[in-house]
Amino acid sequence: MPYRAPLNDYKFLLDHVVDFRSVTATGRFADATDDMVTAILSEAGRMCEEVLAPLQRAGDTHPARIENGIVRTSPGFADGYRAIAEGGWVGMSADPAHGGMGLPLTLTMAVNEMMSAACLSLQLNPLMSQGQIEALERHASDEVKALYLPKLVSGEWCGTMNLTEPQAGSDVGALATKAVPKGDGTYAVTGQKIYISWADNDFSENVCHLVLARLPEGESGTRGISLFLVPKYLPDGDGGVGPSNGLRVVSLEHKTGLHGSPTAVMEYDGATGWMIGPEHGGMAAMFTMMNNARLGVGVQGVGVAEGAYQHALAYARDRRQGKAGGSGAIAEHADVRRMLTTMRAETYAARAIALSCAVAIDMGNATGDPAWQGRAAFLTPIAKAFGTETGIEVAREGVQVHGGMGFIEEAGAAQYSRDVRVTAIYEGTNGIQSMDLVARKLKDDGETAFALIDDVVEEARAAQGTLPELSQAVWDAAETLRETTEWLVARSDPQDRFAGAMPYLRGFALVLGAGHHLRSARLGDAARGALAAFYVERLLPAHAGLLAHARQGADGLYALSLDDLAAA
Amino acid sequence: MPYRAPLNDYKFLLDHVVDFRSVTATGRFADATDDMVTAILSEAGRMCEEVLAPLQRAGDTHPARIENGIVRTSPGFADGYRAIAEGGWVGMSADPAHGGMGLPLTLTMAVNEMMSAACLSLQLNPLMSQGQIEALERHASDEVKALYLPKLVSGEWCGTMNLTEPQAGSDVGALATKAVPKGDGTYAVTGQKIYISWADNDFSENVCHLVLARLPEGESGTRGISLFLVPKYLPDGDGGVGPSNGLRVVSLEHKTGLHGSPTAVMEYDGATGWMIGPEHGGMAAMFTMMNNARLGVGVQGVGVAEGAYQHALAYARDRRQGKAGGSGAIAEHADVRRMLTTMRAETYAARAIALSCAVAIDMGNATGDPAWQGRAAFLTPIAKAFGTETGIEVAREGVQVHGGMGFIEEAGAAQYSRDVRVTAIYEGTNGIQSMDLVARKLKDDGETAFALIDDVVEEARAAQGTLPELSQAVWDAAETLRETTEWLVARSDPQDRFAGAMPYLRGFALVLGAGHHLRSARLGDAARGALAAFYVERLLPAHAGLLAHARQGADGLYALSLDDLAAA
Repeated sequence: MPYRAPLNDYKFLLDHVVDFRSVTATGRFADATDDMVTAILSEAGRMCEEVLAPLQRAGDTHPARIENGIVRTSPGFADGYRAIAEGGWVGMSADPAHGGMGLPLTLTMAVNEMMSAACLSLQLNPLMSQGQIEALERHASDEVKALYLPKLVSGEWCGTMNLTEPQAGSDVGALATKAVPKGDGTYAVTGQKIYISWADNDFSENVCHLVLARLPEGESGTRGISLFLVPKYLPDGDGGVGPSNGLRVVSLEHKTGLHGSPTAVMEYDGATGWMIGPEHGGMAAMFTMMNNARLGVGVQGVGVAEGAYQHALAYARDRRQGKAGGSGAIAEHADVRRMLTTMRAETYAARAIALSCAVAIDMGNATGDPAWQGRAAFLTPIAKAFGTETGIEVAREGVQVHGGMGFIEEAGAAQYSRDVRVTAIYEGTNGIQSMDLVARKLKDDGETAFALIDDVVEEARAAQGTLPELSQAVWDAAETLRETTEWLVARSDPQDRFAGAMPYLRGFALVLGAGHHLRSARLGDAARGALAAFYVERLLPAHAGLLAHARQGADGLYALSLDDLAAA
Repeated sequence: MPYRAPLNDYKFLLDHVVDFRSVTATGRFADATDDMVTAILSEAGRMCEEVLAPLQRAGDTHPARIENGIVRTSPGFADGYRAIAEGGWVGMSADPAHGGMGLPLTLTMAVNEMMSAACLSLQLNPLMSQGQIEALERHASDEVKALYLPKLVSGEWCGTMNLTEPQAGSDVGALATKAVPKGDGTYAVTGQKIYISWADNDFSENVCHLVLARLPEGESGTRGISLFLVPKYLPDGDGGVGPSNGLRVVSLEHKTGLHGSPTAVMEYDGATGWMIGPEHGGMAAMFTMMNNARLGVGVQGVGVAEGAYQHALAYARDRRQGKAGGSGAIAEHADVRRMLTTMRAETYAARAIALSCAVAIDMGNATGDPAWQGRAAFLTPIAKAFGTETGIEVAREGVQVHGGMGFIEEAGAAQYSRDVRVTAIYEGTNGIQSMDLVARKLKDDGETAFALIDDVVEEARAAQGTLPELSQAVWDAAETLRETTEWLVARSDPQDRFAGAMPYLRGFALVLGAGHHLRSARLGDAARGALAAFYVERLLPAHAGLLAHARQGADGLYALSLDDLAAA
């Protein structure tokens, strides 16, 4: 499955659309010169094209499996992982003090997108480590940092997240795993965790689990939860690993896709752990990890969208059917062309939104400015949900472009669609993201939302002279979004916000995407202008239906009882 | 996987919404009394609940396979098929002269929907036979009818369709299979066919293939194609089967879903066939079969939507997470409730559209009135594409409602999503349906379309007094649809119609669905009114974006060259 890194898009977006110049203008990220950025992206792109993309099918057809309690990964994955680790791509944004490159998260996200496009199931592994590195950098003791961070940053050891339990999915506060102080500063962790991505592998020296658990005196609910680092092998204190810890992989799940990524049930039986962050402060520490992981998952969706798009485009340019014009390929048929251009336009919008979210995170980190931090927090659920929905939609269209071959597994189109499906579910379902957006993220009376809308209007104003019609359409959509935001902010009953949360999130993303496309049309070449026109004229009109839905409130939603719903 | 036949919906839709009274008022269908309809639907429903639904998982986990050239079907499928055949459900609408029940197609579609919901992969088998029965009834010689129809109608023999070849997918005219007269009135058929659903099984006495092939003097393209009936075993003329014919199953495909349905590559090597219909007139005969099969496939989508909806609703009423109100189940959360109600409202709309299409077919058959026939022809691509997209969308939401469990195969939600995916592809991709709609079906200068829109407006007028707001919303949407139709009809370049074909089809379906919902609100109970309000207030607004997209024409679509598209 050939893949070509979309370096032109990254360069154009970073230079002209998502304000990456502000990031490199900060003292913290001054080292990220143009030349370095270009070198990094092309180097990572080459690895994705040459090393990771060829692993994609094997990850599907030869799933990770468990053999006598040992996880065996898909053929070639060990080599692929080694290339990622040795390239420094795990710890690109990690602190140089622990071996990282200290680069902006924005660049990590671009590299992550390419790795996701090439081989999503393997890329999930370093994504988990990246989240763990950030959580340890922020919340771990110096001793733990010194012991673990160099190993995680180099990729010699891998990291995981352990939140979910059978009775505690989206409701993390219901968890039952216990942690008992052992008197030597460590804790004995006991309990079962499920849906643990990359819980084990056969290519890293060690696997480090971040586990949410409750101290004996921890109250019920999320406020009684603490976070523990629990390694598979206890460090020997000398940079190596010592004895096994009291944990094991119980079983692997049989999933719809992402077969190359082992998803485990884990059992902890008095395993030794180190507390990360304060007692009963586990959720806050975990959210550090989850927030970036959420953007990271959104970027997975963008990557799969790009992979599925390229795959479908190649098929459609090659396959001949009927009386198509031009080359005679099915890509010349209007409806196929509509699908392909939609895929491209949506992927571009989702990529721009993800990168602009990453820029906001970098700016928040570099400057400490609460406005940037607020913008990052606001864009994160949008980037997660819209990126993953774009991945799912685009992969679905990729299957459709293939016609009958789309349903035949050997063609590969279906794998994108199956693999990406889980991204709308893990790291907080997209429903949870939308609730986060309309509840927590509008708590500032909409100030952050209105600032983002103002930016879109500003862009429309700038394009008014040269692109009057596109400008007007984007402007109008932004004002409808503003009115909808005002309506939501004015609701006193949270249910009225929740009822329209998902269509609001989608409508917001559509308008942000239009702003980015419009800017691309204004500053880019004719092809970017044509792509923007396609998006604004044909896709943006959907905002009206979504935002009308968002303003309906909860009454009509609960007018049908559950018994009514069951009475078909 | 428990399934409950939606008998209340059928009863209400047939009695009050889709004009089934007109069908039973015709001489041809006068036997279909209220009592008979009720008995038939509840009898078929019971079989689906008790016999077919329990086969659903085995069809997925134990796929049909090929053993020494013999197809072995999934465990229990032979018994399931026997129940379908013995119940008379294959030949419900077939001519009583050959053992059929002569019932309206509308009832067959309701029964087909239930079978699809319970076990799609098995239901595809009788769907293929139904299409073959109709093609033979209309186009076969009396001799062939007498030999084959009683066996097909009883279900002792099964039927298939053989159109596609590797180089001839949507472009059927490119086929290469040959038929050479043998001098005794039969033909020697030679060639390879792909994607043959239920090409063989281990539970029917015989399998009868309808094969498109070209006579030696047949010109290239679709006008040189003839249709042949080619049985697996040659009939012995005495109601039994004789020697094997010159055909074989080469291999079965490895598909994303529908594992219980064997999809074969077939090889014909001088196999004996009987011509059906005139020389070089195969496409017309095949279209008889395809047209009803298209509605049948749309109904498959509706069935899977219902199955996935019931499955998700049951999970959501049972699963407890977080601080939900009422029962504490996740179905009380606003965003989950939004998903469930959307699933229900869309399924209901798609069901009403499919049944109204079936009513038009029945009326066309019973009365010969070209207006009914035109309506049937117009609604067929809408019912096919909208029914299958609804199946795909609803199954996708069903996965989402399940959260993490949605991605775990054992939970069953993913199977609906994988199985139904192909329905948007086979029997003419949905893109082909949309092109058929805007090209052939608008050729009457939109007369048929405007008549359907007038019906929606008429319903809005009738609801004006009691449901003023819903009525106004539906009326406005119908007028926007009318303007869009006028715009399309006025285009002289077909590319301008094709460019917006799919959004136009979706927009048309959305408005038709709104008309049916509004009528349900006017004539039904409070729950139907609440469902209709949900649909009209929250889902119908999407028509604006779809119809705006439909009016953009081809220029902007081709502004991006294929090289531009590849230049990310």
